[in-house]
Amino acid sequence: MSSHHDPYSGLEAQIESNVPDDLSVSRVTYEGPELVIYTETPRLFADRDGIVPQLAKTFRKRITIRPAPGTQTEPADAEPQIRDLIPEDAGITDLEFFSTTGEVVIEAEKPGLVIGRHGSTLNEITKEVGWTPDVLRTPPMESSTVANVRNYLVTERDERREILERVGEHIHREPQSDEDWVRITTLGCCREVGRASFVLSTPETRVLVDCGDKPGADGEVPYLQLPEANPVADLDAVVLTHAHLDHSALLPLLFKYGYDGPVYMTAPTRDLIGLLQLDYLDVAAKEGRTPPYDSEMVREELTHTITMDYGNVTDIAPDIKLTMHNAGHILGSAVAHFHVGDGRHNVVFSGDVHYTDTRLFNGAVNDFPRAETLVMESTYGRRNDYQTDQEDSERTLIDRISQTYENDGTVVIPAFAVGRSQELMLVLEEAMRTGRLPTMPIYLDGMIREATAIHTAYPEFLRDGLRQRILHDDENPFLAAQFQQVDGGDEMRQDIADGEPAIILSTSGMVTGGPIMSWLELLGGDPDNALVFVGYQAEGTLGRRIQGGNREIHLTDRDGNTNRMTLRFTIESVSGFSGHADRNGLENFVRTMNPRPEEILCVHGDESATDQLSSALYQNFDCRTYAPRNLETYRLA
Amino acid sequence: MSSHHDPYSGLEAQIESNVPDDLSVSRVTYEGPELVIYTETPRLFADRDGIVPQLAKTFRKRITIRPAPGTQTEPADAEPQIRDLIPEDAGITDLEFFSTTGEVVIEAEKPGLVIGRHGSTLNEITKEVGWTPDVLRTPPMESSTVANVRNYLVTERDERREILERVGEHIHREPQSDEDWVRITTLGCCREVGRASFVLSTPETRVLVDCGDKPGADGEVPYLQLPEANPVADLDAVVLTHAHLDHSALLPLLFKYGYDGPVYMTAPTRDLIGLLQLDYLDVAAKEGRTPPYDSEMVREELTHTITMDYGNVTDIAPDIKLTMHNAGHILGSAVAHFHVGDGRHNVVFSGDVHYTDTRLFNGAVNDFPRAETLVMESTYGRRNDYQTDQEDSERTLIDRISQTYENDGTVVIPAFAVGRSQELMLVLEEAMRTGRLPTMPIYLDGMIREATAIHTAYPEFLRDGLRQRILHDDENPFLAAQFQQVDGGDEMRQDIADGEPAIILSTSGMVTGGPIMSWLELLGGDPDNALVFVGYQAEGTLGRRIQGGNREIHLTDRDGNTNRMTLRFTIESVSGFSGHADRNGLENFVRTMNPRPEEILCVHGDESATDQLSSALYQNFDCRTYAPRNLETYRLA
Repeated sequence: MSSHHDPYSGLEAQIESNVPDDLSVSRVTYEGPELVIYTETPRLFADRDGIVPQLAKTFRKRITIRPAPGTQTEPADAEPQIRDLIPEDAGITDLEFFSTTGEVVIEAEKPGLVIGRHGSTLNEITKEVGWTPDVLRTPPMESSTVANVRNYLVTERDERREILERVGEHIHREPQSDEDWVRITTLGCCREVGRASFVLSTPETRVLVDCGDKPGADGEVPYLQLPEANPVADLDAVVLTHAHLDHSALLPLLFKYGYDGPVYMTAPTRDLIGLLQLDYLDVAAKEGRTPPYDSEMVREELTHTITMDYGNVTDIAPDIKLTMHNAGHILGSAVAHFHVGDGRHNVVFSGDVHYTDTRLFNGAVNDFPRAETLVMESTYGRRNDYQTDQEDSERTLIDRISQTYENDGTVVIPAFAVGRSQELMLVLEEAMRTGRLPTMPIYLDGMIREATAIHTAYPEFLRDGLRQRILHDDENPFLAAQFQQVDGGDEMRQDIADGEPAIILSTSGMVTGGPIMSWLELLGGDPDNALVFVGYQAEGTLGRRIQGGNREIHLTDRDGNTNRMTLRFTIESVSGFSGHADRNGLENFVRTMNPRPEEILCVHGDESATDQLSSALYQNFDCRTYAPRNLETYRLA
Repeated sequence: MSSHHDPYSGLEAQIESNVPDDLSVSRVTYEGPELVIYTETPRLFADRDGIVPQLAKTFRKRITIRPAPGTQTEPADAEPQIRDLIPEDAGITDLEFFSTTGEVVIEAEKPGLVIGRHGSTLNEITKEVGWTPDVLRTPPMESSTVANVRNYLVTERDERREILERVGEHIHREPQSDEDWVRITTLGCCREVGRASFVLSTPETRVLVDCGDKPGADGEVPYLQLPEANPVADLDAVVLTHAHLDHSALLPLLFKYGYDGPVYMTAPTRDLIGLLQLDYLDVAAKEGRTPPYDSEMVREELTHTITMDYGNVTDIAPDIKLTMHNAGHILGSAVAHFHVGDGRHNVVFSGDVHYTDTRLFNGAVNDFPRAETLVMESTYGRRNDYQTDQEDSERTLIDRISQTYENDGTVVIPAFAVGRSQELMLVLEEAMRTGRLPTMPIYLDGMIREATAIHTAYPEFLRDGLRQRILHDDENPFLAAQFQQVDGGDEMRQDIADGEPAIILSTSGMVTGGPIMSWLELLGGDPDNALVFVGYQAEGTLGRRIQGGNREIHLTDRDGNTNRMTLRFTIESVSGFSGHADRNGLENFVRTMNPRPEEILCVHGDESATDQLSSALYQNFDCRTYAPRNLETYRLA
């Protein structure tokens, strides 16, 4: 990541010639993809309407204006002035000054009121005190993850700035190669679900997309030791499509291997991996496995994160621009669009997608100016992988719960902490509120409540109607009284199992460990109870085996003894709640693209799923399609 | 190439337990793939019939027995004894002792007489004087290349032994990986003719197959900078299928990049690249281009060469065995068969092949115990790329020459120095001998004579009948009086052009430089003369443009001035002399394989040729077929 090219020579002069004479430009630097302009006259910049958008347009960069040190009002004087400018209703919960960058971070319950119409209040603040405001939302539900991540990033602010400046210089380096090609190498996730990991490479740049584990196959990790990815330290960028562990679990390992560059993702993905990766280490420790990295590496990763909003075109290398779009799969999940070599080629990694709208999210975006190559998930790619409409699915689920309730039984639903749990919470809350389901306790076990709180910190990533409801306490469905956290350990679980009919949402979603194992033990022996699968169960997981009809299972107790158990409760799968597009949705994703891709790589599915989807897309859309194997390299251009 | 595993611990004891007690084993070492046993009792080893083959069978290695230092008769006494044991008819031309290895190198006109029936004379020598004889053939035609290569290897003998011991230890290292896969990466030669270069890789081993230039496209070299091949220094082995520059030209570059390992090829290939690569440097210098390496790197390459005989199974890595088979294309050309991972997978690189017998060579071998993957040349892979029978082709060629002769004109034939020239020499010599063609001078321009001399040094690589004729001076067709070397420069060429009708064989074969350029200038203006193409003309070469109908060409004179010229002589292409199988031959190569390969990668052909061959093989033989692009990686197992 070294460069002998000074990206700032000339740039400062160019910027000066693009702003009126009375505005000073004292220093120019890149922080990651962003162009940062320090000025002795921050108030005049704030006063000049449209100057920043105009610079952004001219230089085709994200632009940030910061006051040069010493130009601002002293924090002690500035704070009351700022509080005066912001309406009381905004609910400021924190306000902190950072003198090295001239920024004031304002955390508030209603950030919109801090920002003002078209940013008018922010402008007023800068004009008045000279500081650049940075606004964060105070989560409506308290989230220790959001708080921890924010606190950590505050303490690392100076180190982060150094990293961002280094990354910025690397991104804007002079291209070295006169070669001209684009390739994708598969490090995992081909003809299998799990260990998502791909290298997108050009003569100039190597980008790693995702770095996950494989549920139910602990030792099978991405082939990072391949020369195409190795040395990991030499990668130019890492892009994470979403927080699920089969895409993110081994990302901190990169830092153990010496990687020191940026990791691009959405802000909610950053917070969610903070939650999920630390839990991943926790589970490994509890199960007596040596995790491949420790929590220090998770912190390294956070320090190197650059967050992206949906739709923002961002330089991540001299020859690659990245845009993330809503994928509809989980909070912050993204379809990643790479624009390579000034239009030479465009590659889309779908990540995991849900094509239609759900209660939580709008359907996945598939509208790109150009996309010659599509790397497409295939989880439900088989010929018959059709799911029922969500309306039907909800009816089935409610019927099943009602029956179990009438039998005086309890329903347990294995669910990912992130995604399906929140979708189900919305379904169940509404069903109880409208009387379609008797009101009964809904216990959240594992990290579901915490993951839910993270959702409420990022309402702008949720579906339109839901966003509004969350921002009003009395309407926030996640705060309904029947949701109760299982925070009393096995004793509480025993009480719940012995008590009145209830619903339990518990991790892990594929029954590979976590509290769901206790629930199998506590509820599995009684035919009046029910286990309901609502999500995809990957090959090799216990969930898949139970779903496939296996009733004899082995459970390990806390003393390490293995006990055999026969499952006698009702076991049912209700489709239609998956975070993944079904076969129909996958085909529609491609069908409605305009223009359609010239070639499609079908990944992230069992062998039959990737094969059958590949055949179908080839026949229907007359493009080249492949079901790659791991360890292959495809030349795109 | 370092290893902490001592491959000799235990091995010496094992060998001792496999030989009778009276035979001593004083030291055991690997030299490349060979197992070398030093003994204090060389005479007893020589006396014990069948002990070496038996050890070879037990240890599945090539075995060499060498006397421990100090056990042999002094050279001054040994030499007359050796000369006494060898029949006078053998025609010893050189005899040299190497005390560090206990070897005596005997160069003779008739090596068979030195060896004796089943090696009996060699055995006698060792029994008598204790030295291990190594026998070389004195070429029947003097070849400066053969002499230079042999002399050079003699001076480098000690360095070579060190290299071979290091390579031997690396080959026999303990495998490190518990992964299990096989891949091929294309560094060149896909949808194009030229820059042949592939990486065959396993978790344990990376082998580079060929490293050529691209005729007519000077800057387009193999993608050695790809991470799959880079660092070049870390490659485990290099395999060269044959000497033509589109397979070999950039091999010395590997040593410039720090490669320090073995290069496997046949002995004639080694001598031929000595000739062709030095000429390649020479041509570059003459044309004012900076060659990518200098002659020192050619010497490095020779020092690292390990020669292979056809049919010998040879360990080149802990998990790869290589066998070379006759490819029928040029002298020493090989089909390379790789047996990977103890039977996990078998890959065949066809190199360039001629499927049927020619005057020079037997047809290509396509008989392998197993071959799941075939990497197949496709030079004549197009639907209509059928060549006439050689008999018809010869008639056409002779008719064309006769006509030109009757018109008092001269025929010039561009030809590779190696391969087509010798085939044509055989055709023309026979036609003149049998009276089908009037006897006239046949001028050899460029390195054709020297290349022919190298052929005579390796008669065992030639077709059965031809071998015998070459070994008898009075029948050696290459010594016919009408063959005359153009050794008088442009003055001689002018005289020839002004003189009586003649035939001229001149390099380069694709009219990309060399003396053929002078012949175009001298002969091209006169409609009575004729230019006859007999070999493949690659895209981008002047030969291809002329063949395609272009009559206006530009020639650069020795002062660097470019002159325009209109070609007025007759221009004709006679197929059937190519060193490449035609479309029929390529299909037959696959058809008669037993078992047939499961997948075929069609390479070494223009885009239409590789595409059409790939389609045809798929339809006819029901296997997976591909026309790869450069920079791709295929997973084989």
